[in-house]
Amino acid sequence: MPAINSARLLEDLRTLRGIGAQGRGVVRPAFSAADMQARRWLERRYIEAGLDATIDGAGNVFGRSRGAGKALLIGSHSDTQPTGGWLDGALGVVYALEVVRTLAGEDATRGMAVDAISFQDEEARFIGCLGSRSLIGALTRELEQGATDRDGVSLAHAIDGAGLSSTPRLSLEQGRYAGFLEAHIEQGPHLEDSGRRIGVVSGIVGLRGIRFIFRGQQNHAGTTMMARRRDASTALYELAHRINMEFPKAAAERTVWTMGRARIEPNATSVVPGYAELDLQFRDPSDAPLDALEAVVERLVADMNARGGVQIEACRTRAPIAPTRMHDGLQQHLSAAAERHAPGKWQHMPSGAFHDAGIMSAALPSAMLFIPSIGGVSHDFAEDSRDADIVLGCQVLADAAASILRAAN
Amino acid sequence: MPAINSARLLEDLRTLRGIGAQGRGVVRPAFSAADMQARRWLERRYIEAGLDATIDGAGNVFGRSRGAGKALLIGSHSDTQPTGGWLDGALGVVYALEVVRTLAGEDATRGMAVDAISFQDEEARFIGCLGSRSLIGALTRELEQGATDRDGVSLAHAIDGAGLSSTPRLSLEQGRYAGFLEAHIEQGPHLEDSGRRIGVVSGIVGLRGIRFIFRGQQNHAGTTMMARRRDASTALYELAHRINMEFPKAAAERTVWTMGRARIEPNATSVVPGYAELDLQFRDPSDAPLDALEAVVERLVADMNARGGVQIEACRTRAPIAPTRMHDGLQQHLSAAAERHAPGKWQHMPSGAFHDAGIMSAALPSAMLFIPSIGGVSHDFAEDSRDADIVLGCQVLADAAASILRAAN
Repeated sequence: MPAINSARLLEDLRTLRGIGAQGRGVVRPAFSAADMQARRWLERRYIEAGLDATIDGAGNVFGRSRGAGKALLIGSHSDTQPTGGWLDGALGVVYALEVVRTLAGEDATRGMAVDAISFQDEEARFIGCLGSRSLIGALTRELEQGATDRDGVSLAHAIDGAGLSSTPRLSLEQGRYAGFLEAHIEQGPHLEDSGRRIGVVSGIVGLRGIRFIFRGQQNHAGTTMMARRRDASTALYELAHRINMEFPKAAAERTVWTMGRARIEPNATSVVPGYAELDLQFRDPSDAPLDALEAVVERLVADMNARGGVQIEACRTRAPIAPTRMHDGLQQHLSAAAERHAPGKWQHMPSGAFHDAGIMSAALPSAMLFIPSIGGVSHDFAEDSRDADIVLGCQVLADAAASILRAAN
Repeated sequence: MPAINSARLLEDLRTLRGIGAQGRGVVRPAFSAADMQARRWLERRYIEAGLDATIDGAGNVFGRSRGAGKALLIGSHSDTQPTGGWLDGALGVVYALEVVRTLAGEDATRGMAVDAISFQDEEARFIGCLGSRSLIGALTRELEQGATDRDGVSLAHAIDGAGLSSTPRLSLEQGRYAGFLEAHIEQGPHLEDSGRRIGVVSGIVGLRGIRFIFRGQQNHAGTTMMARRRDASTALYELAHRINMEFPKAAAERTVWTMGRARIEPNATSVVPGYAELDLQFRDPSDAPLDALEAVVERLVADMNARGGVQIEACRTRAPIAPTRMHDGLQQHLSAAAERHAPGKWQHMPSGAFHDAGIMSAALPSAMLFIPSIGGVSHDFAEDSRDADIVLGCQVLADAAASILRAAN
């Protein structure tokens, strides 16, 4: 069993934290100056670790091993949310670097081929998982053309600003890999709540988004009697509350749903609103509960529309993300390594958040490992994990990587 | 019975409509160039009608009769909503002018004292009913100091821009008046629906405003399980829907309520919101239903807060407006005149909207007359009334004015 260098791991994580640091948090949105500085730092570290390193035209930092035989691709993303935490994707990026160094440092594993990667824009400044999509050939021209950030900056402009507009983009080398591994903080409270230290991800939840549009009649809030009103906000409140009452009956154990965005026009205290919008997002590790919830939505909308009054239209806000199973064989290697280093203190679990591994699984056998998030907090400056958990997660990943490559070659 | 001049009335209304016209509507917010142009036009018309006219430091246009004995004050407002209709307050302003001219034109009424007024900023660009508040001494320095419009322009700056910063403000002359009369379009559909042509206003509805603040915990919409959430939006939807279910049980015939403004933070599809606000406004001609509804609100909030989770705070968004009874004696004069000119085609009715008469009633016996709004539409470019109804309303008002002054002198 290869042994990682805890001090080196933690020091590199802290160095990366310093690039774009704001208070306890990190601000490194994709293609920003801080993001590109972090990527160039990582490129140098890859080279020091013996990899052939490059930053490709999509902003991915890729380190290619000179080792022979089937290779393993390991990594995550080093871009952050607009006000991000210090670990998030950075953890998995530095883990990959440390696994490369660890395996290269011991005779039994020295020849093994581990490539490391930091994907670009997982956090969707422009396009969620832009880097992994690009690598597997799933970044369409159509998707790319209209892409802007929330301030209206275009993706093309940002790539140009990062000096990458004439840099070629990498494609996944066919036949090279035994699989892809990604480590990440859990971003939820399950591991902490259950006293476990490692999560072996069974799958990434599916996600569907529906926008409801309510069309009524704008009117004076003093002179329009209740019986005559067609108040778009009243219909919004009713539908949202009925969804919250009905969904638990059709949901599975891990189903979640959120109606975190509403828009009311003109949104004035003294005006009966004539127009409103409500976004519903729901997620589950399996398709069946998602189908059942969609049927509930259809029934509630049909029921309310049948009354006349405010008319409700439901449309998809995005292409559904299908639930993704992580690769069973790779999960077994991760589980065995977890049991060796943290006996009885690990578990299988789905990922409620989406990750690059969800994209990569379309091209390669893929698997993920989670470590606990303190208080389940993520996408927030307060995001943190215990040093002991950070070290343990990397040790489990290095052990599993060696075991996967031993089996593949 | 004095007979009004229909052609003169309609021509003046159309001339006033031309000042600040936009399409079928009118844009004359208080103290704007168009508003001040309209006020100077009206001042000239007052002078031509034999009144001593002035524009005071609050922007009120006041025309004082030289007639002897108890006087009557008649008027409304000539400022408009940001995208206003052509009648609204302009109708009552030109009615007052026409009543003055009509009474001065006939031997039997020539000596009667009718003062005419166009109040400033009834539509609350800065302070709702600023002009009538100023006239009766209810415009406090405190209210005035912080007043800005929605673009941040201060009231003081606007008064200065209108050239009125060193013009004195008028105060109501004590003992001069038998009362105040205001005519207005209904701004609702009652008269049209019931086939009636004149409304004698029995009172102006009371209004209360409550803002609910919901405090929960912001979280990741994928990784936070339902049982662990404290979703501010979920509580908002529930409270709003329960209010809409419970209020009809406690409401009276003419009670109306509106929750036309909601704010959710951060209002993002993928984030469990930690903070939300909801505004509730409710109106009724009597205090008892308003008290009953306030008790319903208290019960629902207490019920939801008792569960733990999201905590709801309820606070008043404004000082309550008490329901105002219009003066019985003046109503009798208006009713008798309405019955003479439109037998069986008039009714008593409350006003669901607030008016300057609601302010004036604190200082003088006050009453209001409504004419039908086509389709009940108001505060909109499409606002309109039939010419025959416009003429009839003015005739009723002139007749009632003569009858009131005959009784008072």
